[in-house]
Amino acid sequence: MTSLDDLPIRDDLRGQSPYGAPQKPVRIALNVNENTHPIPEVVVAHVTAAVEHALRTVNRYPDREFTTLREHLATYLGEGVEREQVWAANGSNEVIQQLLQAFGGPGRRVLGFPPTYSMHSIIASSTGTEWVTAERDDEFRLSPATAVAAVERLDPDIVFLCTPNNPTGTPIGLDTIEAVCAVARGIVIVDEAYAEFLPEGEPSALSLLPGRPRLVVSRTMSKAFAFAGARLGYLAADPAVVDALRLVRLPYHLSALTQAAAVAALQHAPLMLETVDAIRAQRDRLVVELAALGYAPHASGANFVLFGGVDDPQATFQYLLEHDILIRDIGLPGHLRVTAGTPEETTEFLEVLGRMNR
Amino acid sequence: MTSLDDLPIRDDLRGQSPYGAPQKPVRIALNVNENTHPIPEVVVAHVTAAVEHALRTVNRYPDREFTTLREHLATYLGEGVEREQVWAANGSNEVIQQLLQAFGGPGRRVLGFPPTYSMHSIIASSTGTEWVTAERDDEFRLSPATAVAAVERLDPDIVFLCTPNNPTGTPIGLDTIEAVCAVARGIVIVDEAYAEFLPEGEPSALSLLPGRPRLVVSRTMSKAFAFAGARLGYLAADPAVVDALRLVRLPYHLSALTQAAAVAALQHAPLMLETVDAIRAQRDRLVVELAALGYAPHASGANFVLFGGVDDPQATFQYLLEHDILIRDIGLPGHLRVTAGTPEETTEFLEVLGRMNR
Repeated sequence: MTSLDDLPIRDDLRGQSPYGAPQKPVRIALNVNENTHPIPEVVVAHVTAAVEHALRTVNRYPDREFTTLREHLATYLGEGVEREQVWAANGSNEVIQQLLQAFGGPGRRVLGFPPTYSMHSIIASSTGTEWVTAERDDEFRLSPATAVAAVERLDPDIVFLCTPNNPTGTPIGLDTIEAVCAVARGIVIVDEAYAEFLPEGEPSALSLLPGRPRLVVSRTMSKAFAFAGARLGYLAADPAVVDALRLVRLPYHLSALTQAAAVAALQHAPLMLETVDAIRAQRDRLVVELAALGYAPHASGANFVLFGGVDDPQATFQYLLEHDILIRDIGLPGHLRVTAGTPEETTEFLEVLGRMNR
Repeated sequence: MTSLDDLPIRDDLRGQSPYGAPQKPVRIALNVNENTHPIPEVVVAHVTAAVEHALRTVNRYPDREFTTLREHLATYLGEGVEREQVWAANGSNEVIQQLLQAFGGPGRRVLGFPPTYSMHSIIASSTGTEWVTAERDDEFRLSPATAVAAVERLDPDIVFLCTPNNPTGTPIGLDTIEAVCAVARGIVIVDEAYAEFLPEGEPSALSLLPGRPRLVVSRTMSKAFAFAGARLGYLAADPAVVDALRLVRLPYHLSALTQAAAVAALQHAPLMLETVDAIRAQRDRLVVELAALGYAPHASGANFVLFGGVDDPQATFQYLLEHDILIRDIGLPGHLRVTAGTPEETTEFLEVLGRMNR
């Protein structure tokens, strides 16, 4: 039998394992920061009708410019964002890959602040872009001074700022983003996958777009929007950035079904986001009750909580799994990460964890 | 206003234009080799029901391994292909991009035989793989001796063999594919996007897979299957090749809606392919009638015909467009390419072309 080692794969891939959280069939899955509430039945019906309509011309290639979808995404974002500033792909991972294909690559350098979303470094590697890192402040925060010093020292072609940051939940202030934009000569990507879970009224980096043509804000419908299965990531930036992505995107990368489904879902945006308040409440409850159980949870602006004080993360992970509860071991010593689910899911997670012999 | 030139894009992208046939709203679109017949109503209904079902869990990420879909694709391919040998992505362009990410890249070389599918060289470039070319025989054919000589001379890491070849329509014999596999040290990608249009019973490179772990056969649901809007490309190869692609694919790259739609469509495969005979007939008619009009059509095993003897391709393209008919100027001097559509579309194309002052 042929094995991977027998094939002429790229040298830097040799010995690697594929990325990905384990997909196990469990009753309570709190491992990949999904919105654990199914979408409302009225949206299922509307999206279904939209897809049915799209199927009548599915023998044709889709609109390569997905103009209608970009229009709806711009409307959803608000903040004066216009259609020409919006781009989308099959998940924000693909959006980020396209950004690195256009602005990174061999001989270029991308800066991240770990612990952060692990796909940032993986996509850097897969596009041949050098991944360089700098330290955060205490409690995973990132002050303007710390971020600016890193940018000045490392002179990156691209900077990743993830806010709220995955896997820590830490928000980054607009002052830090502004300061980085002021000193960076390259592209600044603000990954706002979890932005909808920030406190109501908290400003987004979208408000910084005017006058900053190298600033990119990426978003996703996979988290608050409860649309992970549909794979729709997007960004807002200067229209010139969108022009650059047209040079590297594969033609017709967004299917007609994806376009139709996302447009229909966006027409129900307030309804789709109705669970956000409840999820925020469970997140805040997790922080309080994990502390009461003797763990050290970190402040979070997202739909998950990172908690320290775990003597043996692997054993705790395993104990929960034996009780049909899946959370995430993100490889940070002494830490685990749990998604804020429904009240019932949160209750069961906390009760099982509380019963564990420590 | 910021322009693309003001942004720090990769040096090799400077001055480039995005790939893509013009998407113009015309009555008769024969430019991108779609199946111009809409899918049957019964399939619309079944796919719609499958998508509706998938929407009930769309808040969750899709099956990253798309196991059910791979099972159905293997069954459709036959030839003893098993699920573990199958991989899929959002169009065969993404399949090819993943292959080049795994087996190409900086310092590696990919060989193609132009004129051929232009995305092969574009994806080579976007993955930093050197694109090298060799000549075909007369009438765009590719004999074992010619192909082997090119492989021996250029020593590529990857070889592209497109059969039937786009934009010429020329099939490549299995003897050539076998001979290339025997001498190539790297991966041999046989792009069979148009395979279903070959004469009934014509063998596919799938039959060569056993014992050839570096042979990859790529297919698509965009052509004969009339499912271009759903974006589903796939491949069959040794399971070790699939393992390699897991190292470079973006996690959850295939949406739950795509998976559900493709599975439902594959369950109606014979019905979905019912138009293939009619399309072959229009293709053969195009060859005969274009010759009668004084053009020089090339033999085609696909759903399109390349024809030479066009004094001014741009003027002919424009004349047809003024009559609401869109075909393709593929940049080959003296040539144009036209898709075989319905009998009515073919008739109107031939009549309008016949009326043109030459």
